[in-house]
Amino acid sequence: MSVPSQNRPEAWELVASEAGPDLLVARARFDHLRNPRTGEVLRRVVLDTRDWVNVVAFDDDGRLVVVRQYRFGTARITTEIPGGVVDPGEEPFEAARRELREETGHTSEDWSLLGVVEPNPAFHDNRCWHYLARGARRTHELELDPGEDIVVDLLGPEAVREGLASGEINHSLVVSALSRVLDLRTV
Amino acid sequence: MSVPSQNRPEAWELVASEAGPDLLVARARFDHLRNPRTGEVLRRVVLDTRDWVNVVAFDDDGRLVVVRQYRFGTARITTEIPGGVVDPGEEPFEAARRELREETGHTSEDWSLLGVVEPNPAFHDNRCWHYLARGARRTHELELDPGEDIVVDLLGPEAVREGLASGEINHSLVVSALSRVLDLRTV
Repeated sequence: MSVPSQNRPEAWELVASEAGPDLLVARARFDHLRNPRTGEVLRRVVLDTRDWVNVVAFDDDGRLVVVRQYRFGTARITTEIPGGVVDPGEEPFEAARRELREETGHTSEDWSLLGVVEPNPAFHDNRCWHYLARGARRTHELELDPGEDIVVDLLGPEAVREGLASGEINHSLVVSALSRVLDLRTV
Repeated sequence: MSVPSQNRPEAWELVASEAGPDLLVARARFDHLRNPRTGEVLRRVVLDTRDWVNVVAFDDDGRLVVVRQYRFGTARITTEIPGGVVDPGEEPFEAARRELREETGHTSEDWSLLGVVEPNPAFHDNRCWHYLARGARRTHELELDPGEDIVVDLLGPEAVREGLASGEINHSLVVSALSRVLDLRTV
């Protein structure tokens, strides 16, 4: 989409930047930015965050490979598609194959990129890569890291719809990935 | 979706919790949690974050009301639907009406809730409420806060699809909200 210049605001001038604390999932910094509308300088947080990937994986029977895990932010057990952080020096596609294998023991020979989103451009600088893996099969044992305790399940199309409708599946990045593959309209 | 207990992992025991820094958009804390699989205690960040709202608003001609703004996380001008933070003591629906009016000058008499997602349950504790406003009209001047410089635009259905396909519209919470109203499948 090409946006005519009169329909775009201006970029903000970066006046200064302070290092902030290590947040384990990101490194904070505070940027001092000049609002072109008012001339005022504001201090805003930016979380330097590695790129993420997640994987919509279907088995040969059309069942979605999901992971259930206790999530520390919401203190709740979620149902999600597999995914994680792209390691330093790793390509997003490698990370997607690795996360599918480590978190679910599944592998696939039929991969495609579904799209790339910004998880929250207001304060994260990273992207999340959505991949599709067709014909996924359980070929490996799970390789969970010390911060994980995951149960794998396979959901048929009706269970996926029911999970989305009930809010059992409600991680925004999971919804974003699934919207490339399933019609999620409710109105 | 009701999940049989053998398909669910256990909750993690909260062993301790330390206060962390104020990040402007959230307050960090560090929880010490015991992994039920290994017995080990891990330190994990949680960002205490107010709930967010965003609004899929269509005018009487079926055009989507969008906002363009410079985003500090990605240092890029984005195209998004209006939205923001639910103020203390405010209901999500009030916040949605307020954000639509303040950021775009539009109001509507025809509102519905599209759904609620967790932006990132791995480390945020909040939810994002997606609303639909039909028949939105420009009735007010913009009321931008000092941290905002917003340009409003109206996109027809083709421009919305083009924006999603090109990545011009790629905020995951915007995609999640739009997936309730538009078929976003690409495969």
